[in-house]
Amino acid sequence: MRQPIAQLTMFEVVFSQTLLLKKIVDAVKEINDTVSIDVSPTEISIQTMDSSRVSLVTLSLRADSFGDKFNCDHPLTLGVNLKTLAKLLRTASNDDQTTLRAEDESNTLIVVIESPKEGKISSFELKLMDLNNEPLAVYDTDAKATVKLSSAEFSHICRDLGTIGDTVVISVQKENISFSVNGEELSGNMSLQPSDAVDNSDDSVSIEVDEPIEQSFALRFLNMFTKATPLSPNVILSLSPDQPFCIEYQIEDAGHIKYFLAPKIEDVE
Amino acid sequence: MRQPIAQLTMFEVVFSQTLLLKKIVDAVKEINDTVSIDVSPTEISIQTMDSSRVSLVTLSLRADSFGDKFNCDHPLTLGVNLKTLAKLLRTASNDDQTTLRAEDESNTLIVVIESPKEGKISSFELKLMDLNNEPLAVYDTDAKATVKLSSAEFSHICRDLGTIGDTVVISVQKENISFSVNGEELSGNMSLQPSDAVDNSDDSVSIEVDEPIEQSFALRFLNMFTKATPLSPNVILSLSPDQPFCIEYQIEDAGHIKYFLAPKIEDVE
Amino acid sequence: MRQPIAQLTMFEVVFSQTLLLKKIVDAVKEINDTVSIDVSPTEISIQTMDSSRVSLVTLSLRADSFGDKFNCDHPLTLGVNLKTLAKLLRTASNDDQTTLRAEDESNTLIVVIESPKEGKISSFELKLMDLNNEPLAVYDTDAKATVKLSSAEFSHICRDLGTIGDTVVISVQKENISFSVNGEELSGNMSLQPSDAVDNSDDSVSIEVDEPIEQSFALRFLNMFTKATPLSPNVILSLSPDQPFCIEYQIEDAGHIKYFLAPKIEDVE
Repeated sequence: MRQPIAQLTMFEVVFSQTLLLKKIVDAVKEINDTVSIDVSPTEISIQTMDSSRVSLVTLSLRADSFGDKFNCDHPLTLGVNLKTLAKLLRTASNDDQTTLRAEDESNTLIVVIESPKEGKISSFELKLMDLNNEPLAVYDTDAKATVKLSSAEFSHICRDLGTIGDTVVISVQKENISFSVNGEELSGNMSLQPSDAVDNSDDSVSIEVDEPIEQSFALRFLNMFTKATPLSPNVILSLSPDQPFCIEYQIEDAGHIKYFLAPKIEDVE
Repeated sequence: MRQPIAQLTMFEVVFSQTLLLKKIVDAVKEINDTVSIDVSPTEISIQTMDSSRVSLVTLSLRADSFGDKFNCDHPLTLGVNLKTLAKLLRTASNDDQTTLRAEDESNTLIVVIESPKEGKISSFELKLMDLNNEPLAVYDTDAKATVKLSSAEFSHICRDLGTIGDTVVISVQKENISFSVNGEELSGNMSLQPSDAVDNSDDSVSIEVDEPIEQSFALRFLNMFTKATPLSPNVILSLSPDQPFCIEYQIEDAGHIKYFLAPKIEDVE
Repeated sequence: MRQPIAQLTMFEVVFSQTLLLKKIVDAVKEINDTVSIDVSPTEISIQTMDSSRVSLVTLSLRADSFGDKFNCDHPLTLGVNLKTLAKLLRTASNDDQTTLRAEDESNTLIVVIESPKEGKISSFELKLMDLNNEPLAVYDTDAKATVKLSSAEFSHICRDLGTIGDTVVISVQKENISFSVNGEELSGNMSLQPSDAVDNSDDSVSIEVDEPIEQSFALRFLNMFTKATPLSPNVILSLSPDQPFCIEYQIEDAGHIKYFLAPKIEDVE
């Protein structure tokens, strides 16, 4: 029987597979490596902008997805250096169990990594930081065009086009989604057609369009967002006129990570 | 039925496996990254020297090896930056199909990469360059000594000896081919014996000698030539007095790439 | 029948697997790349300190472990640059056979690498050096605490803690061995429990303690010593008050390599 957690503990969560936590930290730290993690009785969430304040990332993990391995008495904000947390997590094997624990009066995050079959226990104390948290704008996500495709394919396209130029023009219509870039010596266009509805594998492409749309984006940011690729086999791209581009990765059945990026006005045709 | 290619198209070739094209580009760009590709109704060919004008590479691919996937009305010279072409080809999977297309009045090379099962099409426009083409000397290849060996073994020997010194002495006689190098702290000699004629595998060594020969070469160049190793399991080395060393890789049944390098006079014994 | 070795040969040894020799050279050259190799009719041995003269490594390989593939008439000291020897050994495949040979009147070490199935023979001459050999202190190894654990686990712990801080506190008691480090933002502790005596696999941990002990060491040196990890599945750690820490790797049934490191006085609690 599981012992009740001591009263001093305000927040405790157990990741039964450290790999999931590693992937989440890697996906967020690419945007900003010092973040406020908001924990509450119902969820763990992060909202942060990149240093140039051009893009935004939001993360949400539902408490109930951890079963009885989540405990939080009241909301708490933890200022964490994700680079340091990532360094610490590299000492764990992917299927080790990792516990995060914070107490109300303390300024440290306790991280305990257990690989029971080896009889090895590692425990770390990570100093918490005071971070200024400004409220961030919340975006409406009623998209005019939504495309679901393989996250690995999206990552390859952004990486490949990023070697040709700085700006990608994404164009969505019923028949396809295309990604174009113009460089000095070389210009390129990559186009994906929707797959048959029957073939619902991870490599399939589905497109929903209320109205065709074409917008330009800085590839530098897209190539930061694709660090979330290991979290999900698919990515959902949502585009709307006068709205930030939303790139969403679902995190198993536990939540999601969403990146938002404003279109480049000057480049839009 | 295949549609006839539009009249404006002067040159079109389809590589059913992009991997072969990648290997060819890698093998030539090591010597010179801006080259004139000569296309004619019968072949695709390249002749170029390295920037120090010490070594020469010639490539030849027969038109008929592409079957009906080759079309060229009249000779055309395409000035291509192979670095840019290599970058573009990295976006393709090895078994994607790549089409190269050039039109008479245009100053671009069109590259279309298709991976049909994914419903993805990429098309690129690569700006062509005006290059000054001097006619290059053609070498007689009536060799006094010819050695056929594993291309991987030749590559290893050149790489290993290149860590010891700058100059290799290659010596061929009936009994063996030997590679020697003298460094400050260390000198080394590697010797290969011909294998039994029965064992005709890729690792076998065969030696044909009219007269024993010993010549010295700069390892720096040999280590550039071995970038062609992925093109063929074997390499053919041809040596003659007062003739450049010829290093030949056959490209499946489609053609060959040959590198030529003058011996170092001062080092020959 | 094996031919008697020519009289001029004073020392010859054959490593039937070059891999073992590679691992030994890598494990020693990390500490000092110019060493005196002492050969005698009974063993091959090396004793050397690192350049800061803080740590010591001793290697011993018994002559009889080589069977009839060892020949040494009288003691000889060979001043060898291990970096050069390692470079040379990289030209060998792991299962090639390597012969080391030195003659009395010569100032070179002959290294012959044979891969008989390929008909390839490489021979190298490595220039020997005159090195000043001071006699080094010999350490008593009557340890108060001895821990045997997986060499890979020890290597991971040293590497992981080295990313957090410079100094590790190693603490051994009956129940466990623990490794602690304190950094600016992060402190960590890794603890291993002894495994059941039954489970005598390479991953098992065994602890023998006369008296509990706690000492501090510079992780920089431990991370040099763990270059010997490929030599053995286990490592034996021996600690005593007022004695250098001894880290021992057994080399199959042929000998051992031992590293010695003085505790950091200022950090011991």
